[in-house]
Amino acid sequence: MQTSPSTQTVNVGGFEIGGPNFTVIAGPCSIESYDQFLETAKGVKTSGAHILRGGIWKMRTSSKDFQGLGSSSFDFIKTVCKETNMTLVSEVTDARQIEEIYDLVSMFQVGSRNMHNYSLLKELGKQKKPVLLKRGFAALINEWVKASEYVTNEGNPNVILCERGIRTFETATRNTLDLNAVAYAKKNSPLPVIVDPSHAVGISALVPDLAFAAAAVGADGIIVEVHPRPKEALSDGMQALTLENFSQMMKKLEKICTAVDKPLHK
Amino acid sequence: MQTSPSTQTVNVGGFEIGGPNFTVIAGPCSIESYDQFLETAKGVKTSGAHILRGGIWKMRTSSKDFQGLGSSSFDFIKTVCKETNMTLVSEVTDARQIEEIYDLVSMFQVGSRNMHNYSLLKELGKQKKPVLLKRGFAALINEWVKASEYVTNEGNPNVILCERGIRTFETATRNTLDLNAVAYAKKNSPLPVIVDPSHAVGISALVPDLAFAAAAVGADGIIVEVHPRPKEALSDGMQALTLENFSQMMKKLEKICTAVDKPLHK
Amino acid sequence: MQTSPSTQTVNVGGFEIGGPNFTVIAGPCSIESYDQFLETAKGVKTSGAHILRGGIWKMRTSSKDFQGLGSSSFDFIKTVCKETNMTLVSEVTDARQIEEIYDLVSMFQVGSRNMHNYSLLKELGKQKKPVLLKRGFAALINEWVKASEYVTNEGNPNVILCERGIRTFETATRNTLDLNAVAYAKKNSPLPVIVDPSHAVGISALVPDLAFAAAAVGADGIIVEVHPRPKEALSDGMQALTLENFSQMMKKLEKICTAVDKPLHK
Amino acid sequence: MQTSPSTQTVNVGGFEIGGPNFTVIAGPCSIESYDQFLETAKGVKTSGAHILRGGIWKMRTSSKDFQGLGSSSFDFIKTVCKETNMTLVSEVTDARQIEEIYDLVSMFQVGSRNMHNYSLLKELGKQKKPVLLKRGFAALINEWVKASEYVTNEGNPNVILCERGIRTFETATRNTLDLNAVAYAKKNSPLPVIVDPSHAVGISALVPDLAFAAAAVGADGIIVEVHPRPKEALSDGMQALTLENFSQMMKKLEKICTAVDKPLHK
Repeated sequence: MQTSPSTQTVNVGGFEIGGPNFTVIAGPCSIESYDQFLETAKGVKTSGAHILRGGIWKMRTSSKDFQGLGSSSFDFIKTVCKETNMTLVSEVTDARQIEEIYDLVSMFQVGSRNMHNYSLLKELGKQKKPVLLKRGFAALINEWVKASEYVTNEGNPNVILCERGIRTFETATRNTLDLNAVAYAKKNSPLPVIVDPSHAVGISALVPDLAFAAAAVGADGIIVEVHPRPKEALSDGMQALTLENFSQMMKKLEKICTAVDKPLHK
Repeated sequence: MQTSPSTQTVNVGGFEIGGPNFTVIAGPCSIESYDQFLETAKGVKTSGAHILRGGIWKMRTSSKDFQGLGSSSFDFIKTVCKETNMTLVSEVTDARQIEEIYDLVSMFQVGSRNMHNYSLLKELGKQKKPVLLKRGFAALINEWVKASEYVTNEGNPNVILCERGIRTFETATRNTLDLNAVAYAKKNSPLPVIVDPSHAVGISALVPDLAFAAAAVGADGIIVEVHPRPKEALSDGMQALTLENFSQMMKKLEKICTAVDKPLHK
Repeated sequence: MQTSPSTQTVNVGGFEIGGPNFTVIAGPCSIESYDQFLETAKGVKTSGAHILRGGIWKMRTSSKDFQGLGSSSFDFIKTVCKETNMTLVSEVTDARQIEEIYDLVSMFQVGSRNMHNYSLLKELGKQKKPVLLKRGFAALINEWVKASEYVTNEGNPNVILCERGIRTFETATRNTLDLNAVAYAKKNSPLPVIVDPSHAVGISALVPDLAFAAAAVGADGIIVEVHPRPKEALSDGMQALTLENFSQMMKKLEKICTAVDKPLHK
Repeated sequence: MQTSPSTQTVNVGGFEIGGPNFTVIAGPCSIESYDQFLETAKGVKTSGAHILRGGIWKMRTSSKDFQGLGSSSFDFIKTVCKETNMTLVSEVTDARQIEEIYDLVSMFQVGSRNMHNYSLLKELGKQKKPVLLKRGFAALINEWVKASEYVTNEGNPNVILCERGIRTFETATRNTLDLNAVAYAKKNSPLPVIVDPSHAVGISALVPDLAFAAAAVGADGIIVEVHPRPKEALSDGMQALTLENFSQMMKKLEKICTAVDKPLHK
């Protein structure tokens, strides 16, 4: 009945994900400027985050919405990572982007809308860096696990699954966080599983409670959106925690991780 | 950002639900016999459960399936409650059953398939005992909260909401536990909210993990199915915990409840 | 590959439903007044409707919304049916209502939210009048067909299935009309199947197109909402056809019914 | 109330889609061999199909399933098209495939799992050939229409929308055909809309009924899977019509198309 330890761990920027410790990945939805990214990175590090997240290219429903800074941000991203001694997880939406950001990231993220983009997955299977595979928002658990094999079959075993909410009839929240899937995947796959409570609920005031639930259900970590001034965010401000929210969340999260015998990484 | 305490508590069999302590309701899906019910009741009490659950009449998709013992069980139910000094929560599926079991129960349960049965809800609004209102498996959070007003408007303020999983496209688990809804309802309604992880996932090996998540997300309690020999259960054996599973679950649950400052009732 | 004729027909007010002809049931969502009901009844009859629909008691998400005229409408309903020589289909939401409206209706309707109300279904199984069983908005086809057995097992074989849209992630329309289910039920059940395009889409401008699709897919009839002045309707005005819309729809529907060899009843 | 004619038509292989006539695209799920493709092409042409479909590369949930013949089929595809004087619609799953099959197809298809693959859509926006954009199986109508703008904004106005079923809780059918979405898109977008009943229901015996419904609801055409011997098909045999099924379907479809004033192309 107890949560089995993952049989496989994945090293991201020096942190073992899937082992005895809980990992926190935090940062803005989109990287918007040097100042915004640096302020966020310093803030989340101070509160105990282990790895940075931040979008360079954004997939947007409308072609008219902000699409990310792209290559103009590469230089300052390196600077921020060096200044804070943290590494970055960022999304690739096209196989051609892999090479472009290879030196910038410690893990490639595949977004929910690309979980079925098997061309992209195969390309990532040829890389030497880990892959964070978000569940498609309408993908069966089984399809999600099978999609990971498009990566691992090409020779890259370092895949981390990420539950980020599924699309249901409910409209009060952005998506429906499916922690059944986390419990199920932990018992039926050797891969580490983390949770993105920010996209899963879409309401910043509810993000910490769902992060706590993720820790209690047996996830190996979380990936959360933080912005110094969410109201000014160029994307997804509704779900971003402020630096102070994040700091408060981390204090309670630490207690829960300890209670479930999966303490936060130091 | 912290979970606000419920502004309203409901007393069930001497336990305040919605206050500073976490409540555990446990027992079989169906009450099948004096021996089965007594063994289960004694077992869950020993491990720390506060209130019993057990079905007298069952709603079944097929009219040919076991429909519950009905009135033939009334006498021994009283005996079991007396012997264990516990009270019972049980479902009514028809307004005519309210009077029949009035003296047997400390709380009436309205099942998921009856959440929209407004005639039944109004009738329960005229009673002096609390009502456990399960969310319809396809009900919006808003419809669930509004359904509670069919009870409270008739003069009975003692309603407890219960999230029990919603119907989604996922088929690996019985339903999809919606903890977003628990976090949302806690912030947007004064009513206590508990979670039924058994129906929500339908796989006994995953029930404890989801119970832990329920405690961490801020629920006021859980209601779980326990059977001495799940393989022999007349209904829902797949999701029932054994008495030993339940005992193990309670030990870890206690730690998490303490970590989130909502310790188990004594 | 061709649509098999239903092996069972149900006579409602003189019209065989499930046989070689297509049946149109029309009328207001709620019966609001003698004048409103008479005007609607005369209008739909002129355009070719066979049977009237109209709510006496309404199930509403909020207990504060209009709940129907109830018994105060009984007398004028009889008058309208006599004046137009039509019969009425109306919903019962509680077993106690069956006797109250027994003489008013030619068929009892069980609404979507009561499909799982097995007490009510069993009670209807003891009656001599047909039952229109709407699909629960989150019910599997299999559960819908099985629910009909709660009626037929009690001795009343006269059940008509009604698809009325299911709840999905889509929000542009009120529900998602599931014509797969109609094709499936026609091939896998002996019961007649009709379609309610009004609730299924919830937008009056789209109702006729979906009524045409229902005829083409092989349904035995439709049940549609019509109101002389939809903007003044006390419930569901968004989805009601005007009398003129209805008249136009019937002309095209007639052609399609002829093309699929299931002409409208005379 | 009448279905408005599309304000825009798209010419595919000499047939105007979106105008006064109904278009039928038919062929195998996967192109498996010269013989299989030729036999299918000749058969569907004889029964009145206008354009061929057939997969060259297949997206499969499992990386171990048949992935399509790829480039080894190019030569014989040209031969079959020439012999039957028909053109081919085929799916691209990666931007690099566009150039490879440019001369083989009269229209590029974007599959359901790639609807959100905006890199691919932008690349198709730079081409001179039309694009068939299947709805993501969990995409809102609004997201589907907005995805088409990723193509049109790049300069290619020739997009045809294709409804192919959405993912819901229902499991008796493969997906749930959403004809509400067809009616809605026809009234709210200038693009032609066609329907894929094969993937939408996944059961060959039900495909014709849903094709008829598609014609009645106002779609501009259908795309259906046909295989000479469905039991031997390398993919999706469950939903393929035999050549004889297809022939029968076309006879009834012709009557319905005439009844709704959108006769089949000659």
